[in-house]
Amino acid sequence: MHEFEFIDWIRRRVGRPKGRRGVGVGIGDDLAVLRFGGRVLLIGSDMTIEGVHFTFKTATPRQVGHKALGRCLSDCAAMAGVPLGAIVSVAVPKGFSNRVLKDVYRGMIRLANRFDCPIIGGDTSTSRRGLVIDVCLLGACEGNAPVLRSGARPGDTLYVTGRLGGSILKKHLTFEPHIEAGRWLAQHLPLHAMIDLSDGLSSDLNHLCRESRCGAELFESQLARAVSPAAKTLARRTGKSPLVHALNDGEDFELLAAIGLGPEKFPPLPPHVQLLPIGRITRSGVVELVTTDGRRKRILPQGFRHF
Amino acid sequence: MHEFEFIDWIRRRVGRPKGRRGVGVGIGDDLAVLRFGGRVLLIGSDMTIEGVHFTFKTATPRQVGHKALGRCLSDCAAMAGVPLGAIVSVAVPKGFSNRVLKDVYRGMIRLANRFDCPIIGGDTSTSRRGLVIDVCLLGACEGNAPVLRSGARPGDTLYVTGRLGGSILKKHLTFEPHIEAGRWLAQHLPLHAMIDLSDGLSSDLNHLCRESRCGAELFESQLARAVSPAAKTLARRTGKSPLVHALNDGEDFELLAAIGLGPEKFPPLPPHVQLLPIGRITRSGVVELVTTDGRRKRILPQGFRHF
Repeated sequence: MHEFEFIDWIRRRVGRPKGRRGVGVGIGDDLAVLRFGGRVLLIGSDMTIEGVHFTFKTATPRQVGHKALGRCLSDCAAMAGVPLGAIVSVAVPKGFSNRVLKDVYRGMIRLANRFDCPIIGGDTSTSRRGLVIDVCLLGACEGNAPVLRSGARPGDTLYVTGRLGGSILKKHLTFEPHIEAGRWLAQHLPLHAMIDLSDGLSSDLNHLCRESRCGAELFESQLARAVSPAAKTLARRTGKSPLVHALNDGEDFELLAAIGLGPEKFPPLPPHVQLLPIGRITRSGVVELVTTDGRRKRILPQGFRHF
Repeated sequence: MHEFEFIDWIRRRVGRPKGRRGVGVGIGDDLAVLRFGGRVLLIGSDMTIEGVHFTFKTATPRQVGHKALGRCLSDCAAMAGVPLGAIVSVAVPKGFSNRVLKDVYRGMIRLANRFDCPIIGGDTSTSRRGLVIDVCLLGACEGNAPVLRSGARPGDTLYVTGRLGGSILKKHLTFEPHIEAGRWLAQHLPLHAMIDLSDGLSSDLNHLCRESRCGAELFESQLARAVSPAAKTLARRTGKSPLVHALNDGEDFELLAAIGLGPEKFPPLPPHVQLLPIGRITRSGVVELVTTDGRRKRILPQGFRHF
């Protein structure tokens, strides 16, 4: 059973809550959406595990904290939400250094302060192996509706907020959650669907298309301009092409947005928003790459998968 | 550094959020309290770890799921809150049985359905050792204010909602979160402070007194009537007294309530609420046991501690 089959299995069983409590969107989006007190709440969690999402050989403790909270903030950005607060559970192996643990928290707190998103609670416990951090983020929508994965329409242009691939070389520990960009897009453009690129473009675009019941085509000519320098560096080591890294590498934490407006009609973008066109939404049920010589190749989810 | 010193360290650093967002109580209570859309939200998390909180040698997969969600529901009960929804993150070791994982979820979903508390989101990932489950619970207060640890007043009577000790024999896997009892107490009695007994009475009463800046005395004669049969069974194996088990064993998940009303003045209790008096709140800064022959013994936190 793959991870996504398991998520579907859960989804079929958990149902929707009764009457008064009004959960809007449940499992399957970046964050869950609830209506509460006449407003829209967002909530979701990400677990960050030593040996899976980071190792202290390549990450500083502060970077680990930054990543643990940043992953959730990136989910919030993809919903066009504002973070309200974070709940942090940590499991710490016996004999773990206090200094390192404090530095992990310093990394989280620094990022939390920048986004006015205090750590408001959590749990501490013992781990049998390695540091485990679970961050649950509570957010809200202010000035716009939550942007889901499911709203993409045929004809929408697909954009990313930054260059892709090779994140493992550094960016997965230092990325900036695009909270401001997510909200700006929702408030100024016909933004129909959005997701953050955590599993890799090939996987996450397939998620978005599946939730929106549509297909997509990526243009190699456009995508080539969205390949990061890190993808090129990494490609020299791996022997794969930079384009394959841009397609399949996880943890870019850029936003992928389906917008009902082509690049030629754009209003001026503010300095904190970058948009690179990479393709468009189609009626087909599949995700394809249109190569520079006009051939079509099917793009299957090939980013990182858990169990 | 002890767990509570670490929590204090975090608490001093995370601060309070700015203006509009209104977090009421931060780290240090059973759940964090936020004001949102004119209403009171509760949020908090508990991590449940194979080899620390359970083992599949003694727990069925459904009991593991029950415990993982039940721990959070018990926190919600201690705030006199109503659960709204749960976010469940799991980390699963390679090669873990799908059947077992589904049964863990079945245990959670069954309890979730009983409390109208759907699983609304979460995260799945890989663990390097053992199953790790983090549940983040979102709740609300309806018809009463949240009940904190910090409101106990000298003269309050201390009650527990059930018998204590020996939970490791079974109850830590099968306990019932006292959601209804918590709310009934808040709505019908002068309930000043409450906490759920997860670390053990000796520890959790010290937490409550510390947050309320007061002391407490437990009466051996009363406490003896609150000792569970399981504590007596366990005492025969360990050679400790049943009273020591009732004082120090963790994971009873009963509520400990400080109420401004002695047992002689009580209105009739509904069938789902049981209250056993065990002592009272004092002005002293310490927690003491008053033995049947009138001696006083200091009670220090001796329940389960992580790192």
